Amino acid sequence: MPLVRISLRQGKSAEYRRAVADSIHRALVETINVPEKDRFQIITEHAPEDLIYDPSYLDIARSDDVLLVQITISAGRSLEMKKALYARMVGLLAESPGIRKQDLFVSLIEVAKENWSFGNGVAQYA
Amino acid sequence: MPLVRISLRQGKSAEYRRAVADSIHRALVETINVPEKDRFQIITEHAPEDLIYDPSYLDIARSDDVLLVQITISAGRSLEMKKALYARMVGLLAESPGIRKQDLFVSLIEVAKENWSFGNGVAQYA
Amino acid sequence: MPLVRISLRQGKSAEYRRAVADSIHRALVETINVPEKDRFQIITEHAPEDLIYDPSYLDIARSDDVLLVQITISAGRSLEMKKALYARMVGLLAESPGIRKQDLFVSLIEVAKENWSFGNGVAQYA
Repeated sequence: MPLVRISLRQGKSAEYRRAVADSIHRALVETINVPEKDRFQIITEHAPEDLIYDPSYLDIARSDDVLLVQITISAGRSLEMKKALYARMVGLLAESPGIRKQDLFVSLIEVAKENWSFGNGVAQYA
Repeated sequence: MPLVRISLRQGKSAEYRRAVADSIHRALVETINVPEKDRFQIITEHAPEDLIYDPSYLDIARSDDVLLVQITISAGRSLEMKKALYARMVGLLAESPGIRKQDLFVSLIEVAKENWSFGNGVAQYA
Repeated sequence: MPLVRISLRQGKSAEYRRAVADSIHRALVETINVPEKDRFQIITEHAPEDLIYDPSYLDIARSDDVLLVQITISAGRSLEMKKALYARMVGLLAESPGIRKQDLFVSLIEVAKENWSFGNGVAQYA
């Protein structure tokens, strides 16, 4: 169910990008009950001038390794679950591929369960 | 009104991508009352490592021809309309350009009517 | 907080794209209370066949300079604020880099305040 869009600066290896995607998915599985196989992710790389971030908003020192991650999920997770998700994401990304906790920006979009089709033209969660 | 983001693996022809976009738009027109000319679509191609999908989640056998389609629409469509949309999308995509029904992943995002501006700096639907 | 996705045809200079991003950010700051430093934007360029727009929907004459802008924000802005945002966006984009008012398409996605993390794995707005 989650559709995960991961945006980062161009120039990282395929291994690095895979590690980012793996850590994000694991955090979803561990904290907000996403099934292990419910994995759909799109990674995009951008030239420096096309990925714009403020380097100090809220007194957080971001670097060019910043990740902008937007995750569309079904509504219904509690505030505590969302907090756990953010915390676990930075923890796992710090381990692999080694991203500073300041460099993770997350945006969640919540939708109704009936707003997904996983194939076959069917609304599997409705 | 719909803003349609279509993501697929790199390597398909422009004709193939156009056929994908055409079929998706036609399904929107036929099932959820989108005006024929209300068409705004963005297609992005991705390297294999940057478009990640599970090949069997929910026992649906996806292939590298998978389409991840995210459609932002105004809220208010019924469950029956959404089901009709998913079904029509796979039907039309099977006809042109010839996509397996297992390979269509759809995510809908619903927003308020006042959340659109189609030009001129005006909220035309508010 | 806003996550801004700006999509346009390929072929514009980096300076042009920067001016687009600057004008959009300024409009957000001036009309809907976005902090000056709360700036996170992703610009993507697309081949003509991958950015599809209707050239006359709602009798608005769009050109190949069309901008498709999708902005994720926290919910809570009034209709008047949204109208002011759209109007200010076209005004500022007309000044710099010089975009026709017909060529701005805007889609807003509203989310809960707890749906953001700006770094450190924390839900700063919750």
